[in-house]
Amino acid sequence: MSDLYAVIMAGGAGTRFWPASRNHRPKQLLPLASATGEPLVATSVRRILPLCPPERIYVVTAEHLTAAMQAALPGIPAENFLSEPVPRNTAPCIGWANAEILARDPDAKVMVLASDHFIADEDGFRRTVETALAATDAWNVVTIGITPTRPETGYGYIEKGKAASDGVYAVERFVEKPNNERALEYLASGHHLWNSGMFFFKASAMARLIGSHLPALGEGLDVMMRAPAAAARRETVRRVFPELPSISIDHGIMERAQRIAVVPGNFGWSDVGSWQSSWELSEKDASDNAAPSGAILIESRGNLVSDLRTAADPAGDRVIALIGVDNLAVVVTDDVVLVIPRDKAQDVRKAVELLKSQGALTKL
Amino acid sequence: MSDLYAVIMAGGAGTRFWPASRNHRPKQLLPLASATGEPLVATSVRRILPLCPPERIYVVTAEHLTAAMQAALPGIPAENFLSEPVPRNTAPCIGWANAEILARDPDAKVMVLASDHFIADEDGFRRTVETALAATDAWNVVTIGITPTRPETGYGYIEKGKAASDGVYAVERFVEKPNNERALEYLASGHHLWNSGMFFFKASAMARLIGSHLPALGEGLDVMMRAPAAAARRETVRRVFPELPSISIDHGIMERAQRIAVVPGNFGWSDVGSWQSSWELSEKDASDNAAPSGAILIESRGNLVSDLRTAADPAGDRVIALIGVDNLAVVVTDDVVLVIPRDKAQDVRKAVELLKSQGALTKL
Repeated sequence: MSDLYAVIMAGGAGTRFWPASRNHRPKQLLPLASATGEPLVATSVRRILPLCPPERIYVVTAEHLTAAMQAALPGIPAENFLSEPVPRNTAPCIGWANAEILARDPDAKVMVLASDHFIADEDGFRRTVETALAATDAWNVVTIGITPTRPETGYGYIEKGKAASDGVYAVERFVEKPNNERALEYLASGHHLWNSGMFFFKASAMARLIGSHLPALGEGLDVMMRAPAAAARRETVRRVFPELPSISIDHGIMERAQRIAVVPGNFGWSDVGSWQSSWELSEKDASDNAAPSGAILIESRGNLVSDLRTAADPAGDRVIALIGVDNLAVVVTDDVVLVIPRDKAQDVRKAVELLKSQGALTKL
Repeated sequence: MSDLYAVIMAGGAGTRFWPASRNHRPKQLLPLASATGEPLVATSVRRILPLCPPERIYVVTAEHLTAAMQAALPGIPAENFLSEPVPRNTAPCIGWANAEILARDPDAKVMVLASDHFIADEDGFRRTVETALAATDAWNVVTIGITPTRPETGYGYIEKGKAASDGVYAVERFVEKPNNERALEYLASGHHLWNSGMFFFKASAMARLIGSHLPALGEGLDVMMRAPAAAARRETVRRVFPELPSISIDHGIMERAQRIAVVPGNFGWSDVGSWQSSWELSEKDASDNAAPSGAILIESRGNLVSDLRTAADPAGDRVIALIGVDNLAVVVTDDVVLVIPRDKAQDVRKAVELLKSQGALTKL
């Protein structure tokens, strides 16, 4: 049987967790759904270790995040961190990792996973992954589609077609984020799944698909991979990568290629999209507060307290005290304090936009 | 005419402005009612400078606060700061300052003022003070009683008796903090004034009153004042002061002595008793927010934001962001973040009590 490799996509930025998420500390480095303080990316790696040893896990990230990623993932060899000089969307990201893996092992199977999602049932997740991996013998690319639990308008959907083998379906088509009415139809149909952004394929198959559907990307990757030594490779990547076409794997490959399959998954998945969902996924006390153990909560219910202060406190521990307030998100970093109603948490973007317009770049 | 001396009582602690007010930084050192960041004690001194030069202003404070007080009041000579080794309530505080002033100037008149109150109409205040000072020729002690504007249950009251000279009344009696019903009666009566804790007297008269009504205090003060040089005085104070009777000037002198007068005052006085009253006294923006200029307030109304962080921020300025919240007090220090509804601000004591019970003394 061919060996399994993992690619963790960990280059993303995003403002939905401001002020915790920042340019230098994106969402995947934050412990947004963990009682132990484990960053999402570390959880994402830990949950696949029963399937794939760290030597075969690749992490694609941004140059300025590489050191932080290595610190968060000490078990993964340094050479498995691929640093994008600029973000070029998911097709170049996956294409590069695939090229590296293919050069190492022509028979490799690859799973591409997000670095910043939450999964409640990790055993169920791994069983679904194994189903998807087995299907890569018969299909070009296999995805996992999450069985919807609500009429979500924030995700893309996958319409499943004919049932193939056990638990595997042909993909009928990919559909964009729906409006409310359409989302309700999708939920009722039983045929629509959330696009989770997980991909499973043989490295050789993905290389062929890129050659067919994204030839410019394929040629760029060839140039990069011809640089033999690590230093030369780094130099070449810095030169070639920014020239690659910026396109998602969904638009560039999935929606164009034949023989794409989907495996429905049902393992308590969340993309952890806002402080609201971080609160939903966090352990809560009897008053429904999700807060670090040192926080003071008096006559307060349903709050999320996130304390990311790091600077040395000469007087010892720090305190966040909420008295008589309900359903707030209170997020404290070394330089920012945010107070916002939990169910309006998506409005943090308004503060981010204001700071951008003020040129307060150190706060972003 | 005899010279005027001022005594500013600045030894108080108090928890109502936690976490801004702390053992090492009590309320009077905070800019709670100022747009310019002036601490209350500096405002208290500034507003009497037209009446009394800094060389004749004494500040009674606690030993551990003396350096901070001197820094906040750079115009006042170092020898005018009297450092209590332990707090012994207001009679020993005023008695000591009075003894120091009397030793310097047997004809002195003295005004005793709080360090942590707000006064809107400073001219009106000084006119009232001059009336009270003039009355000290005929009365043992003169106080200022504030004309009530609401049925306040948090203050003691002074019932005024017969009108004496212009604007001066004999004190009928002092009354303790009333219940609601009684406070409404006081407000309606027209005879009751709030006890503002301001006292005016001749130094020689106060020395006599102490000798008559608090002889143990008088003897202790005599021992302290017999130490001739500054160093010896400091040593003697450390030994004798803790032995002095701990009693308020109200209970010890005012309620016992004859010929006590009150001058009604009406100059926009507040004892700045809570974050709520700090908000009331602060300058507010069009959305009724009282916040430092750097704060971000989006779709938020009626909030008080207090930022007392001092530690160097390597990334530049700090940010406090409120989005979609109303009528909160958000107070941020280097080690504490407090979020509380403005109109429940008196409940900060609940956090203080909790921290005390946890032995978290550095947070107090």
